[in-house]
Amino acid sequence: MSFKLLEGKKGIIFGALNAESIAWKIAERAAEEGAKITLSNTQVAIRMGDVDKLAEKLDTIVVAADATNIDDLENVLKKSIEHFGGKVDFILHSIGMSPNVRKKRVYNDLDYNYLKSTFDISAVSFHKLLQSAWKLDAINEWGSVVALSYVAAQRTFYGYNDMADAKALLESIARSFGYIYGREKKVRVNTISQSPTITTAGSGVRGLGQLLDFSERMSPLGNADGDECANYCITLFSDLTKKVTMQNLFHDGGFSSMGMSLRAMGQYEKGLKIGYGLETLPDKDKKA
Amino acid sequence: MSFKLLEGKKGIIFGALNAESIAWKIAERAAEEGAKITLSNTQVAIRMGDVDKLAEKLDTIVVAADATNIDDLENVLKKSIEHFGGKVDFILHSIGMSPNVRKKRVYNDLDYNYLKSTFDISAVSFHKLLQSAWKLDAINEWGSVVALSYVAAQRTFYGYNDMADAKALLESIARSFGYIYGREKKVRVNTISQSPTITTAGSGVRGLGQLLDFSERMSPLGNADGDECANYCITLFSDLTKKVTMQNLFHDGGFSSMGMSLRAMGQYEKGLKIGYGLETLPDKDKKA
Amino acid sequence: MSFKLLEGKKGIIFGALNAESIAWKIAERAAEEGAKITLSNTQVAIRMGDVDKLAEKLDTIVVAADATNIDDLENVLKKSIEHFGGKVDFILHSIGMSPNVRKKRVYNDLDYNYLKSTFDISAVSFHKLLQSAWKLDAINEWGSVVALSYVAAQRTFYGYNDMADAKALLESIARSFGYIYGREKKVRVNTISQSPTITTAGSGVRGLGQLLDFSERMSPLGNADGDECANYCITLFSDLTKKVTMQNLFHDGGFSSMGMSLRAMGQYEKGLKIGYGLETLPDKDKKA
Amino acid sequence: MSFKLLEGKKGIIFGALNAESIAWKIAERAAEEGAKITLSNTQVAIRMGDVDKLAEKLDTIVVAADATNIDDLENVLKKSIEHFGGKVDFILHSIGMSPNVRKKRVYNDLDYNYLKSTFDISAVSFHKLLQSAWKLDAINEWGSVVALSYVAAQRTFYGYNDMADAKALLESIARSFGYIYGREKKVRVNTISQSPTITTAGSGVRGLGQLLDFSERMSPLGNADGDECANYCITLFSDLTKKVTMQNLFHDGGFSSMGMSLRAMGQYEKGLKIGYGLETLPDKDKKA
Repeated sequence: MSFKLLEGKKGIIFGALNAESIAWKIAERAAEEGAKITLSNTQVAIRMGDVDKLAEKLDTIVVAADATNIDDLENVLKKSIEHFGGKVDFILHSIGMSPNVRKKRVYNDLDYNYLKSTFDISAVSFHKLLQSAWKLDAINEWGSVVALSYVAAQRTFYGYNDMADAKALLESIARSFGYIYGREKKVRVNTISQSPTITTAGSGVRGLGQLLDFSERMSPLGNADGDECANYCITLFSDLTKKVTMQNLFHDGGFSSMGMSLRAMGQYEKGLKIGYGLETLPDKDKKA
Repeated sequence: MSFKLLEGKKGIIFGALNAESIAWKIAERAAEEGAKITLSNTQVAIRMGDVDKLAEKLDTIVVAADATNIDDLENVLKKSIEHFGGKVDFILHSIGMSPNVRKKRVYNDLDYNYLKSTFDISAVSFHKLLQSAWKLDAINEWGSVVALSYVAAQRTFYGYNDMADAKALLESIARSFGYIYGREKKVRVNTISQSPTITTAGSGVRGLGQLLDFSERMSPLGNADGDECANYCITLFSDLTKKVTMQNLFHDGGFSSMGMSLRAMGQYEKGLKIGYGLETLPDKDKKA
Repeated sequence: MSFKLLEGKKGIIFGALNAESIAWKIAERAAEEGAKITLSNTQVAIRMGDVDKLAEKLDTIVVAADATNIDDLENVLKKSIEHFGGKVDFILHSIGMSPNVRKKRVYNDLDYNYLKSTFDISAVSFHKLLQSAWKLDAINEWGSVVALSYVAAQRTFYGYNDMADAKALLESIARSFGYIYGREKKVRVNTISQSPTITTAGSGVRGLGQLLDFSERMSPLGNADGDECANYCITLFSDLTKKVTMQNLFHDGGFSSMGMSLRAMGQYEKGLKIGYGLETLPDKDKKA
Repeated sequence: MSFKLLEGKKGIIFGALNAESIAWKIAERAAEEGAKITLSNTQVAIRMGDVDKLAEKLDTIVVAADATNIDDLENVLKKSIEHFGGKVDFILHSIGMSPNVRKKRVYNDLDYNYLKSTFDISAVSFHKLLQSAWKLDAINEWGSVVALSYVAAQRTFYGYNDMADAKALLESIARSFGYIYGREKKVRVNTISQSPTITTAGSGVRGLGQLLDFSERMSPLGNADGDECANYCITLFSDLTKKVTMQNLFHDGGFSSMGMSLRAMGQYEKGLKIGYGLETLPDKDKKA
């Protein structure tokens, strides 16, 4: 499927690791839609993942960058502009990681150096990217910047830990910078709040299997997958959405607007029938 | 427990039926806190319920009213002012009913005459009450008006049916009229979005038992009950909350800010273990 | 500009009156993108407006309908299916009118028969349309239904009157029916919350000129116009947004995420310099 | 005015500097309502401000603390428990500061060390306080923790700069920790989103004078002042709000629910009459 929606456009995709990655799928779809793209990820990710294969397939470059490092970010922007022979039209930020989650530090026993890293990698990196782009005047008028988020920014999911706070921060940065970038350069900045998706990055989140099932049954259209997210992202990069900015856009099959669905309750009810009363809930269920 | 928070205040309580009713508890608590109150409900409710007993206990009057009828509402206001020898300081609107729910008309097979009744009784009645009070200049400066709502106004709960739309409408009316009543008369208007609560009125909602269990486990503090709602409502009638207006205030043990709790997921998971796969979900689960 | 995004799709556009109408622009853009469409509006609107010209231009039919009348709505659906030789893929609901606004009844002096009409025309018509489509099974799987809304559903704008409540109701209906239509038929239902737009329909709103100016300066990208809304709407009808449902999507240049912009404040400040103190605000400013 | 709402309760107030401070007023009102309190602020604030006078007046102790330092926070908690001879029932977090604002670094030219400080002081300090309290088991069951926030967490106000992101982060932390603290210890955690208020701390925000005027005219009840905030905060510390948690509660005279008021528009319009057209807006209006 190609509509040539991004014909003549150039963009940078941060965060593709392997074919499971949402960023990978977005890169491929953007190319199908006629865009030229460049890729960026960390040195480690490039070594461990398949980004080079993607670059080869899409006939483009990979620029290694630690997204918490401004010099690195500026380098990605400069190399991309050089590669394209001009400014960029869109950027995808699909970057997030919590050392607290990785090291199994629960939310009421956080390590604060890890917390700083969670914020630096998952949210402040977005500000640094925008500020670097701003200073280099790297984005064309009516350009579009998108970061990937999750509904935990609004509602608490046990086990999502400090990533919830990082996503809330990320969405706030999108609004704050979106105001300035919009006013001065007509560049729009949005976040997509995506269904939980099985990727290498997401696999560390506790209880992800059950959450995916719950989310699937709660969402009238089912969870949105990575391919669908790529399609949606294309519309936000295109000229058809020029006046959408400072928004957090739910792409989740309806989950965010649900309180309780018939299908999720059907499953829940089965648990009730064999379940414990509230008083006798075993202690092991009360952790974290 | 009495702090004399409402000493010298006078208010009207709509919607007390029997000792289970939230409105009943609010009436009792308001009296304990030093307020004088009057009561109103429909003729039928007065006949079927125990409102007269409550009036006797609180040494006050009951004024029958169909809340969809402006003359009736004006009569309640006039009789109350007469009873108090002065204007009122607070009003509670705890009125809601859906003929579609009662007659088991599902949301994709609504009867539109019933729908009109749902809106008239559950939401437009609030506008009529406010407009009648406005025209009679029935509320003192810095008075407080509260209506009871439910989180279905924001998120869809299967089986809550057209009451969800009625509550969204109710909350919008609170904002719209709150602006004018605040600007001109310093009267504040808010809604309390209360946990699902077992009352005679609420008992018609489909699957309420399971919903209460789910809600209890999702809410870190558990569901809020009617007595707790009465306490909260007292703070909103008091002079301690003078600048809170046009708000929908969740009184729900935290439910509205939850995406998934450990305890609800614990229960859900048990259902999963014995559960059907998504594909084999029996047809009977797919109704409404 | 055409990407053939809607190639092979068929849809119904309600509410096109003349070339200023957003619905008109959406109809034209949908046709450009390869869709076949049919048109509907009231008898009066067809007589007063230019819908017939649009039909001629797009080589299609106009089916007159009072959107509060189920028979009429069913007739539009049946005639459209007949015209297309198959079910529809998308529907636009761009219908709204307040007799209270027209007759200059302010919000604290509403006529309740008018209020019923406001809701019937502007919100309940959307439920009737969806329920009729449901019963006739008129929409293909993965179809898309969009209604036009305004931010007054969330925040109070003086003078917007009972249309604010109607839009809140409309958005709630989109969520409630979106759940069922999504679960059972994979049809998505969303609302677009559009910048204030000068159209024949919108021109009755009080103080629209100043509001447009304020909104323009508050929005970092400026107000979104009808052409841009048409572009955005196309993305929601397309297969690229299949998992977006039950959402209210702001298409407003960023207005909804703004608290105060530099440009709006610059203008406001000029008023301050020559302005009255708060105490001496003339009475005429205190109306409505 | 005293209702003895906090009789027998003990609490810690962070952030009182002088009689203008909201925290100061909350401390005084809490004492009036029967609570015992302790005070904390930084060494510098204690030296520059009048905290010692407040301590004398309320016959209590001041424990100096850098709220970014866990040892300091634990010391405040331990000293307070020692002083009270028991655990605490409530805590107020009124702490916020942005070096970027102070040093006039605009949002598209942030210093990232400063940004880290903004977050550490204004938001992460709240997590550290909660985690320290958790580890020391310093809060009684049904205790109440409140932090002060601002609507910039949801909507962008030019000049509010990185404090907007800090407040969004603060509110997310309240939700995330509120879930755990509620589930395990029945402790509730909320934020109050207060009107802009003239205090020593707030005076650095750019264009505060005009913002206060705009906010005053937009809010139907006018801006909420510090005394009113203190009253509201008392209700949240009291036993009357036991089931309110994980909420951001607007205490703002209705501002947050307003799109445009008649009074603000009246002022804006005056600016329009003498104003520039959009095209001729002078460049100096386009900064930051």
